[in-house]
Amino acid sequence: MVKDEKNVADANAAKPTGADPAGKAAKAPKSEQTRTLILETALRLFEERGYDRTTMRAIAQEAGVSVGNAYYYFSSKEHLVQGFYDRIAADHEAAVRPVLADETDLALRIRGVLLRWLDVAEPYHRFAAQFFKNAADPESPLSPFSEESVGAREAVISVHERCLTGSSTKYDAELGGILPQLMWLMQMGLVLFWVYDRSEGTGRSRRLVERTAPIAARAIALSRFRVLRPLVRQVHEVLVEFMPGARGAQDVRSS
Amino acid sequence: MVKDEKNVADANAAKPTGADPAGKAAKAPKSEQTRTLILETALRLFEERGYDRTTMRAIAQEAGVSVGNAYYYFSSKEHLVQGFYDRIAADHEAAVRPVLADETDLALRIRGVLLRWLDVAEPYHRFAAQFFKNAADPESPLSPFSEESVGAREAVISVHERCLTGSSTKYDAELGGILPQLMWLMQMGLVLFWVYDRSEGTGRSRRLVERTAPIAARAIALSRFRVLRPLVRQVHEVLVEFMPGARGAQDVRSS
Repeated sequence: MVKDEKNVADANAAKPTGADPAGKAAKAPKSEQTRTLILETALRLFEERGYDRTTMRAIAQEAGVSVGNAYYYFSSKEHLVQGFYDRIAADHEAAVRPVLADETDLALRIRGVLLRWLDVAEPYHRFAAQFFKNAADPESPLSPFSEESVGAREAVISVHERCLTGSSTKYDAELGGILPQLMWLMQMGLVLFWVYDRSEGTGRSRRLVERTAPIAARAIALSRFRVLRPLVRQVHEVLVEFMPGARGAQDVRSS
Repeated sequence: MVKDEKNVADANAAKPTGADPAGKAAKAPKSEQTRTLILETALRLFEERGYDRTTMRAIAQEAGVSVGNAYYYFSSKEHLVQGFYDRIAADHEAAVRPVLADETDLALRIRGVLLRWLDVAEPYHRFAAQFFKNAADPESPLSPFSEESVGAREAVISVHERCLTGSSTKYDAELGGILPQLMWLMQMGLVLFWVYDRSEGTGRSRRLVERTAPIAARAIALSRFRVLRPLVRQVHEVLVEFMPGARGAQDVRSS
């Protein structure tokens, strides 16, 4: 699976500077392995013991690294969860590349993007269900809507942006900055459904994607009608005002 | 505040028959008082100690009734929560009567219905936030989407039905059975926002209503356009398939 360079770089940027025990030269492969080991150990313990009851000390011990080393890679448990979000986002980005390269039909592109997300997230399904109550509060740093989750969120929104712009569907240019955010919100709805999906292999979530992707594509195609455009814009204004993570249509992020 | 007879009757129907210690004659006022006392005590303890850690025994003790008496009114903690939902629904139904009697503009009717819900629910805001993690799982009997919550849910949907039919807005007759369910779903979205709303007097939730009521009214007015009708119907089909509590457009409930 292709690693997303940007996300890895972002995650590394969060580390305290001047505290690199491995040294610049040996850094890339070894430190990435340790980082992955800590992250995977943490996810396992969160699932087994619950997020609240799992300490950084226990994670370090289970991973066979020193507590200081664990803190070097992830300065808190919250950072571990952000690391998890970044990883899912990067894996997803890699997984959707073939879909976005081959398909032009918007419904099939949306379907592909969402089904690939289910594929990528599948190994974490039990963890996600256990973990959800910590992330449901929009003011929690662990919420996908939080300031802290901006990296993973922007990565997912940009996948939806490519999904839209590379399709054969015509849409109103003014809505171009808005629609990918609404598509991301649709994905968050899917995530919510999936968290509680107890069907075999989360088959119902897959079926939900099959059913909703054509509806979303049709709604996007309709959104260019003059009579509907103000509605989409008003919905987006409400999102910008009330959803911590939403961007205004004119916003250009400097980050 | 006017009591909703139907809801009270429904709740009484859940009691084991032939186990009425107070006797038929004295029942109405006294038993209603005891029932209310138990319910209010339970809500207070759920808030103070958490839902999971509060036992029926503790509720009975705090309310100053015997454990047997508590179980007579509510056969489990889940029934207490359903009693709470029924009460909110009945209070809401009474609170919206003036709005639905006086207004004909759909945006103002929706606004009124949702603002009155915030009024009625306000005293339970802290409890709701604490309690939410138990009710978020759609398969929990405590979920507003569950089979067990059907009474309160149907009561709220019928409020939205009256909100729609009494307005001056024209809508497609075929969508008449669908739109109130979508309006109810919008209210569930508001409830989710409100649960996590920490603003003074949950002012942000009120502002969200002010902003979204005109959008919802406009969307409903637009839904009668031939080009949009299939979209509304498809959205509803998805709801019927995936949302435990949704009703098919043709369904007539015998219960």
